Amino acid sequence: MVIKEVGRRIRLGLVGGGPGSMIGETHRIAARIDGHYDIVASALSSDPERARQAAAELGIAPERAYASWQDMLVQEAARDDRVDVIAIMTPNDSHYDICMRAIDHGFHIICDKPLANTLAQAREIAVAAQRKGVEFCVTYCYTGFPMVRQARDMVQNGELGEIRQVHLQYVQSYLAGELPKGWRTENKRGGDSLVLMDIGTHAFHLGAYVTGLDVTKLCADVGSAIPGRSVDDYVSALLHYENGARGSLWVTNAAAGSEHGLSFRIHGDKGGLEWHQEEPNKLIHRRHGGFEETITRRLGPEMSDGAQRSTRIHIGHPEGYLEAFANLYTEFAERVAERLKGIDSPRRATLYPTAADGVKGLALVAASVASTHHGTWQDVDRS
Amino acid sequence: MVIKEVGRRIRLGLVGGGPGSMIGETHRIAARIDGHYDIVASALSSDPERARQAAAELGIAPERAYASWQDMLVQEAARDDRVDVIAIMTPNDSHYDICMRAIDHGFHIICDKPLANTLAQAREIAVAAQRKGVEFCVTYCYTGFPMVRQARDMVQNGELGEIRQVHLQYVQSYLAGELPKGWRTENKRGGDSLVLMDIGTHAFHLGAYVTGLDVTKLCADVGSAIPGRSVDDYVSALLHYENGARGSLWVTNAAAGSEHGLSFRIHGDKGGLEWHQEEPNKLIHRRHGGFEETITRRLGPEMSDGAQRSTRIHIGHPEGYLEAFANLYTEFAERVAERLKGIDSPRRATLYPTAADGVKGLALVAASVASTHHGTWQDVDRS
Amino acid sequence: MVIKEVGRRIRLGLVGGGPGSMIGETHRIAARIDGHYDIVASALSSDPERARQAAAELGIAPERAYASWQDMLVQEAARDDRVDVIAIMTPNDSHYDICMRAIDHGFHIICDKPLANTLAQAREIAVAAQRKGVEFCVTYCYTGFPMVRQARDMVQNGELGEIRQVHLQYVQSYLAGELPKGWRTENKRGGDSLVLMDIGTHAFHLGAYVTGLDVTKLCADVGSAIPGRSVDDYVSALLHYENGARGSLWVTNAAAGSEHGLSFRIHGDKGGLEWHQEEPNKLIHRRHGGFEETITRRLGPEMSDGAQRSTRIHIGHPEGYLEAFANLYTEFAERVAERLKGIDSPRRATLYPTAADGVKGLALVAASVASTHHGTWQDVDRS
Amino acid sequence: MVIKEVGRRIRLGLVGGGPGSMIGETHRIAARIDGHYDIVASALSSDPERARQAAAELGIAPERAYASWQDMLVQEAARDDRVDVIAIMTPNDSHYDICMRAIDHGFHIICDKPLANTLAQAREIAVAAQRKGVEFCVTYCYTGFPMVRQARDMVQNGELGEIRQVHLQYVQSYLAGELPKGWRTENKRGGDSLVLMDIGTHAFHLGAYVTGLDVTKLCADVGSAIPGRSVDDYVSALLHYENGARGSLWVTNAAAGSEHGLSFRIHGDKGGLEWHQEEPNKLIHRRHGGFEETITRRLGPEMSDGAQRSTRIHIGHPEGYLEAFANLYTEFAERVAERLKGIDSPRRATLYPTAADGVKGLALVAASVASTHHGTWQDVDRS
Repeated sequence: MVIKEVGRRIRLGLVGGGPGSMIGETHRIAARIDGHYDIVASALSSDPERARQAAAELGIAPERAYASWQDMLVQEAARDDRVDVIAIMTPNDSHYDICMRAIDHGFHIICDKPLANTLAQAREIAVAAQRKGVEFCVTYCYTGFPMVRQARDMVQNGELGEIRQVHLQYVQSYLAGELPKGWRTENKRGGDSLVLMDIGTHAFHLGAYVTGLDVTKLCADVGSAIPGRSVDDYVSALLHYENGARGSLWVTNAAAGSEHGLSFRIHGDKGGLEWHQEEPNKLIHRRHGGFEETITRRLGPEMSDGAQRSTRIHIGHPEGYLEAFANLYTEFAERVAERLKGIDSPRRATLYPTAADGVKGLALVAASVASTHHGTWQDVDRS
Repeated sequence: MVIKEVGRRIRLGLVGGGPGSMIGETHRIAARIDGHYDIVASALSSDPERARQAAAELGIAPERAYASWQDMLVQEAARDDRVDVIAIMTPNDSHYDICMRAIDHGFHIICDKPLANTLAQAREIAVAAQRKGVEFCVTYCYTGFPMVRQARDMVQNGELGEIRQVHLQYVQSYLAGELPKGWRTENKRGGDSLVLMDIGTHAFHLGAYVTGLDVTKLCADVGSAIPGRSVDDYVSALLHYENGARGSLWVTNAAAGSEHGLSFRIHGDKGGLEWHQEEPNKLIHRRHGGFEETITRRLGPEMSDGAQRSTRIHIGHPEGYLEAFANLYTEFAERVAERLKGIDSPRRATLYPTAADGVKGLALVAASVASTHHGTWQDVDRS
Repeated sequence: MVIKEVGRRIRLGLVGGGPGSMIGETHRIAARIDGHYDIVASALSSDPERARQAAAELGIAPERAYASWQDMLVQEAARDDRVDVIAIMTPNDSHYDICMRAIDHGFHIICDKPLANTLAQAREIAVAAQRKGVEFCVTYCYTGFPMVRQARDMVQNGELGEIRQVHLQYVQSYLAGELPKGWRTENKRGGDSLVLMDIGTHAFHLGAYVTGLDVTKLCADVGSAIPGRSVDDYVSALLHYENGARGSLWVTNAAAGSEHGLSFRIHGDKGGLEWHQEEPNKLIHRRHGGFEETITRRLGPEMSDGAQRSTRIHIGHPEGYLEAFANLYTEFAERVAERLKGIDSPRRATLYPTAADGVKGLALVAASVASTHHGTWQDVDRS
Repeated sequence: MVIKEVGRRIRLGLVGGGPGSMIGETHRIAARIDGHYDIVASALSSDPERARQAAAELGIAPERAYASWQDMLVQEAARDDRVDVIAIMTPNDSHYDICMRAIDHGFHIICDKPLANTLAQAREIAVAAQRKGVEFCVTYCYTGFPMVRQARDMVQNGELGEIRQVHLQYVQSYLAGELPKGWRTENKRGGDSLVLMDIGTHAFHLGAYVTGLDVTKLCADVGSAIPGRSVDDYVSALLHYENGARGSLWVTNAAAGSEHGLSFRIHGDKGGLEWHQEEPNKLIHRRHGGFEETITRRLGPEMSDGAQRSTRIHIGHPEGYLEAFANLYTEFAERVAERLKGIDSPRRATLYPTAADGVKGLALVAASVASTHHGTWQDVDRS
């Protein structure tokens, strides 16, 4: 079961995610579910009046409802009861500046994916965070599902044997019709590839999280499935993993009629696993020479440690996306609370994704874009 | 989308649900998700030390961590900042006393199902609550799912035509092995029929909630599927609904290998609907003469008002049991906030189940037990 | 794998199933699939010209294209190369006369379900067949699916432990709209209960075939879900099995929007099985304390003998209804070939349903109708 | 419904598919199901005694149970009642010789896929067949499923709008363990790529059959997922279709734990379709802006002409692989019967795949192998 007590409530400040933002609401619910955070400060909108009013609705004291993230970082840094953690849910192209300044002030950070808009910026952030000793979580939120952790544990325990094949999909319809307005579709504010930055990095990370393996080389076809548009909406790629496993990836936000469509299917020498985010409480385990199992429990002696630590309710009651997201928040709260108590090394390996994972995502975006440009295979920069 | 603001945060006091209680944790998460409640008082356990410590972990002030529910009701009633709502999650046989006293003190009430241990007690509670003017929610929590509300709206809008057949199932395995210890299996502390009180009332209510129809007559077979035990674990029933529709129900907590297993399938002149709690974001709509539709969205113009008002996240991100439970809490918060502002009639019909629904549940239990005893059909007391 | 060779091709004569008859086409394909039968004689229609022409299309010699079943039985009985087997696919109310005459002439018989229109007639047929020593198959065709046999074998091998609960469904929409014309809906030509005779007997038999258990007592609600019609279209029933297991059944052909809808779900002490005819190559096995298995193979050492003997193709290639039906034909061919070689006792227990199973079906219909009439539980006549 | 009468029974001669051959049994059942063929001649095995005995079991006259395919072609060509059609189900490397000789003698041909072992041979066969005027069917059998034809018709009718994305999978486990012995794994007897020749051509053809579009350019990664083996067992590819649509393909027979795993998913401007061979009677239709439909009927006014012409049984009775295979045989019988009556142009477009489709398959294999070799994109030879 998810940690009930972390020892001290964590003070949280929000950057972005104001009125009408789905991701903002998601972060706030994730912070509230287990009761480990108090949301005490915010810079919710670049419009000061909206920022103030939205903060009031969240019960944030007026003097901590900041008109800009710059104000928030400076003023919070000066308070005795300063926030412990900054959560960043702004457009991609602002992550770098906010992160670097927040690190300077020594705040621990929860940052939306992708970590930054370029590989170089992502690396800078990761290096700075480590140097300054701040804890860092990148919200590759799909890794928070109990069944994703069950899959990861099964791979680590050797239940699949050596991993041989990986297939990743993320097939949405967000851009299947008219291009929506907003920062994502504006002049590269979202980075070099809309589809990869927006959802492709989730798929890549999911594959790495479950298998424990990195992609070393890939051949990608990034482009627009719907002709004549200024942004890409499609990528398919051939993957080679570090252990020799082969893989493939199909990611698009232009598949008319789709909903969410994130899934993985991996096969090792002893069998395979398949998982779909839209039915997250089911993990299909195909056993070589045995019958197919559908793992639908999340608690109980037959479940892995990672699954059991990630669930709040059992006997077949479904959990969803908000609970998965909350798992990252709660695990980060536990780590931050350790730090606040002066414990430097975490008691156990983090289950949540870190800045290093954010860097890897950007390296895969860069390799995919380069491969498409040159029409050849490309090594992934893993330095 | 679920209401973001109800105007004023509601002060909540908990009775029961202490350490290790799954239902207690569920109520607390449900209260926290949307940020409308502050949990400020509690009587979490009949063991005072456990009650105190558990309250501390929840951040409840020591002076409001009561050693008994009686203390809590009396002392809170005397405070200026007294709790607005009492949430009751104790064994069935205590509901009556706690409810009657809480009503006396004018607290609004969220009470776990079944409302009481007998039909007569349930009626007394409902009458007292109405007389005293307190708001009342019975947590038939499965009615909180967006797709259940979509189904209900589709029936009300006539999309199925006249309802002709209803089939209800709740097939668990909680009692499939050794009888667990606890109040449920002790000397009728759970009421006249363990299986009906524990889960059967959920199934009956779900059928009524979706169809808008009451059962008027039934023939039931309540008993032990596993021979030689002191409690019942199985009921199957033939149902006649008020409009002439036929129905049937299969409820058991002794089906080895099952998980949760709550589902409904209803058919009207124009088609049918099927829903399973374990995959709650899917509603199957079988259209007479058309193709089968799988409704998987929760937000958007093609969805009913009830579905849209019950969801927090979209584009195929799954929601689960805790969100459904939270819907009841949030809708109740909205109603209570209206009352605190002096609004007597609710702005719209409640989506959450009330004491009247609790009474109906007990009437169906009584009729089922009597039908089994006499081996004949039995009218349901609907007075 | 299904028997490749039975030693001698069987000569088959058809009664009924002429032009436009789906069941006629089904019987013929079932007879052809494995190549054990030659269709050499027929009385396909009560209209002599239609009968002649349809026979020609099937390649039947003109002199054996009879104008009536009476002619066919008499003339075939007199031939040296007389047909070995008569297959009967006429309306229910004709089965008795045709069977009794065919038995008189010593023909082996494949007869559509239900065996006859009354329990008394069914018993007469079964007694006469046994006395005369003719082999008899009643086409409860759903027992021919490999996964149904896998389920039956798993029960017999004790993999589920003692059977405790049985739930049977057959939910169609054939009568959901206007009543179609034809013998079924005419003045009881189909027997005392349209819905039970037409599809209910299939569901009852499926339960008995898989569990090896008979219903001893039941309480049924037979009637019209759609008001104002002259025939019944709905039955729900509470069942007690001979070993004390409880059961229930929901059968209707008036559930608008449904397709086929035959399924079973059974639970024993160690787990449960679920199967749906519309996805027949999948058997869900819920194991107490273990994960859910989906059995999707039909051949291989992990499969039961019954499953392996009932499949023609493997590595995930789906088989369907016609193959299941063909299994009964082929197994009957094997038995008839033994008889033609003078082997009296079959080499192994028949997998196909016999006249005795036909009798049980009629007893369950009679008990259901009586129970509904009296509004009480009814013993099933098992004499 | 599938054609009941083709005017004259077709005389069929078999080459290959002797005792123990699954594909042989499949062809024979496919030929028998609808009663349009008489199996009258055979060369079942390269072992004359086995060939003779197997023929006897099939009821083939001894004088037409040939010891070699060469004998069969020569002697049948000389008979008045010579076979109309030769069905070839031998190892890939023999197709070319048998086809060329059979064409010489003017026999119509049903040939297993792949048509030949090289693109050049395949082209020679196609040219010779056309010149000689023999009818030719290549058994890409998965195109025989009613739902595949429904999908194809929906695309042609514009129900999906312009096709934008195609994803093809064929994920088996045949080679997941030890390499089995046999011609497939021997020294290139199966062609340049085991995995592509064996199953990859099925996947490519399925995509083309449904969309009506050819792949013009591809980038492939053909290799061994399981290291150290002499044959390939894996291919993943990036595809560009002639109309600009993007696609991808994942085909392997080394995914431990898989069964069959053939599926397609295609998206056009208005929605998408998904189909899995293991549940062939279900076609998922995702509609942009509408709900997801599951098409489960095969007959009725809402179904396409191609679906209706390909089904034998309705009201939710499942059909399977053997029926799909039989559709090709029956449609070919209809065409051959026309030719025997002297009708030169077919009455309608063939639904079954022809030699031209066989040629395309080999061109895709050649391009995939070349692309892998060079590590670049490759044009598909469509001359």
